Amino acid sequence: METSCGLTHSQFNFMTIHIPKGYRFSAVYAGLKSDPYSFDLSLLASDFPASAAGVFTQNLVCGAPVQYDKKHVPSNDVRAVVANTRYANACTGEQGLVDAETMADAASLLACGETGKGLVMSTGVIGALLPMEKIKNGIDNAATRLVASEAAFINFAKGIMTTDTIEKYVTQQMKLGTGEIITIAGICKGAAMIAPNLATMLALILTDAAIEPDVAQELLHNAAENSFNSISVEGHTSTSDTLLFLANGAAAAKKLDGDDLIKFTNLLNELCIELAIKIPSDGEGASHLITIEVEGCEDIAAARTIARKVAEDPLVKTAIFGADPNWGRVVSAAGTAGVKFNPKKLSFYLNGFELFQNGEPKNFDKKTVAESIKNNRNTNFKLTFGEGNAKTTFWTTDLTTEYVRLNADYTT
Amino acid sequence: METSCGLTHSQFNFMTIHIPKGYRFSAVYAGLKSDPYSFDLSLLASDFPASAAGVFTQNLVCGAPVQYDKKHVPSNDVRAVVANTRYANACTGEQGLVDAETMADAASLLACGETGKGLVMSTGVIGALLPMEKIKNGIDNAATRLVASEAAFINFAKGIMTTDTIEKYVTQQMKLGTGEIITIAGICKGAAMIAPNLATMLALILTDAAIEPDVAQELLHNAAENSFNSISVEGHTSTSDTLLFLANGAAAAKKLDGDDLIKFTNLLNELCIELAIKIPSDGEGASHLITIEVEGCEDIAAARTIARKVAEDPLVKTAIFGADPNWGRVVSAAGTAGVKFNPKKLSFYLNGFELFQNGEPKNFDKKTVAESIKNNRNTNFKLTFGEGNAKTTFWTTDLTTEYVRLNADYTT
Repeated sequence: METSCGLTHSQFNFMTIHIPKGYRFSAVYAGLKSDPYSFDLSLLASDFPASAAGVFTQNLVCGAPVQYDKKHVPSNDVRAVVANTRYANACTGEQGLVDAETMADAASLLACGETGKGLVMSTGVIGALLPMEKIKNGIDNAATRLVASEAAFINFAKGIMTTDTIEKYVTQQMKLGTGEIITIAGICKGAAMIAPNLATMLALILTDAAIEPDVAQELLHNAAENSFNSISVEGHTSTSDTLLFLANGAAAAKKLDGDDLIKFTNLLNELCIELAIKIPSDGEGASHLITIEVEGCEDIAAARTIARKVAEDPLVKTAIFGADPNWGRVVSAAGTAGVKFNPKKLSFYLNGFELFQNGEPKNFDKKTVAESIKNNRNTNFKLTFGEGNAKTTFWTTDLTTEYVRLNADYTT
Repeated sequence: METSCGLTHSQFNFMTIHIPKGYRFSAVYAGLKSDPYSFDLSLLASDFPASAAGVFTQNLVCGAPVQYDKKHVPSNDVRAVVANTRYANACTGEQGLVDAETMADAASLLACGETGKGLVMSTGVIGALLPMEKIKNGIDNAATRLVASEAAFINFAKGIMTTDTIEKYVTQQMKLGTGEIITIAGICKGAAMIAPNLATMLALILTDAAIEPDVAQELLHNAAENSFNSISVEGHTSTSDTLLFLANGAAAAKKLDGDDLIKFTNLLNELCIELAIKIPSDGEGASHLITIEVEGCEDIAAARTIARKVAEDPLVKTAIFGADPNWGRVVSAAGTAGVKFNPKKLSFYLNGFELFQNGEPKNFDKKTVAESIKNNRNTNFKLTFGEGNAKTTFWTTDLTTEYVRLNADYTT
């Protein structure tokens, strides 16, 4: 991964948070969560018509907000995004669709005086209708508090949290050829389903650059592939996974092109990866973030299929929880991915130690490798196949007793 | 499932165990396991040349015994099967292939005086070479103890156990049109990988009926589809999964055809299902056997894809461990299977209670349904799609803290 852009890890307070121009944010307690000191509804207004793009869950059982947004992107005139936690508004029938539109329109109206220019994201339990009075009051309340500040930006991130232990965001800036500075900011919430039906990944990327809607859609689609579509906690794409991208041109009105567009594309890709990794890093009950590098495949599809299979294998995931350098489970999982390869050309490295070389186990000091797992929150896998030049990277978590406890012993 | 044949669940001592004619069995302690009071090597001799068929793991990283057997079935003249536990002889390179052949030939030679008529199955850790002196001595020892008895048959089943808590077998008889009685007997060991690389499912079906090798291969392939290929504990096909089928004609020399063949096919299918279900029933750390019925799909492939996705979803599996009637996780898992269906026609029943009807949740008494999960070791899912007439059944286990503990905190 290119790191030349010097991503700002905004979790660290001493680093500057860059807020894109022309956006205002707020979050309120709308009475959805039980804790009155939390935020449960977030609102965003764009002071200029924004190009908007979206990438959504592939789950056929998808939430009403997903169905609504899908019809409204790509767009060249979005002015508001409203998001709530606690209720996903999924499996809620026709009423759910009405409610999603009501939310989006309420946000749009308050942001720009017109309906039809809002997008909506909901996360939380599925199968329950939204408490629309609370939602509408929450939106009204949030609209009175919209401000362009770092604190309000962070509050927006807090207002969409479910079981996340920390708000998740990344911001970054770059200079255009004209000398103008533009900003990208990303917010997301975590991928895990708990207590009893939480649905799941929401992410929002904002920029004050100007981008054509169709270009924005293409950039987002590509960026998602190597970031949000390359993470897995439990191999379950929720009913409500949503990634939105707004570009309002507040910092530079000319649509990005040429070198600026290339540079922006790279920055967007990096930012999406940084943001996406925060999700398994904060996975429920996880004790390790596992980075899976798959190299030397015939094509990208093969590399991704193998990486995902390894990432979702419970035997691999429990072994890392147990700090066991279990090359056998990893190569066996790769062998079941349904991708043809010659096992005699397969090698496997764990935290830089070569454990398996050209189809046969190598002698290695098990204790040393086990210690390297035990003493680090990050574990690195590298599988090399010698079949071609395609490679990919995937991220997942270990599988822990705490994960099972959290996902079984919850209460409604 | 048809139950007209009245399968004998041979685990119950008061039921008769039927041993097919013309086979002799033994099991010995060859010094592979640490417990000298256990069996770790099993041998079978057929007194007549047996037709033999096999179905094997699809894992590209497959063990030497799998590679050997694949080359030797279908066959019209198999006389011996040798099996060992503790070492899977997988990822063992060229020496592993030599060792597999040495085992098979030693067994063949002792059974009939010739090499080339033996098959071999190994289960246990992968990546370690077989201790061939112990193995050869074990085979010699086992050959002196071959007998046609119920006890020897059961000992064979004991000699292939790894983490199984109980030996697994089913036997059944049927009458041919000629009045002759023929017997089918099946033995298997469990599907779970533990400490540190156990590999995995072994099964052996024996009959004293006479069947053409190609017919035997076709029957076995079809029977496996709805039995051994319809169970999943952790979605991981091991390096060594092997299902063998021998038919020696000792009870009826005429090759099966017509109504006899149809009746035999049904009995074989039922027996394979009964045998296969024993594997998740005895899954490591499992507290529930989950039966997943998928109905109303466009085709069998669609039904199987959905059933497998639900069976392997950790959120579904943890919910059942927690005795939670979590319809949301089940329908959401179905939605991610990659099979097209109309969510508005999807209904879901748990233990007979309809929780989700035509795309929307139903009101139900959560406590009653939760109690039905908590108070039974078996949980039943039924998903109906209204897209066609194809249906399938799949079996899996819940995902428990004990499973994770067993698969993480093992020692070598």
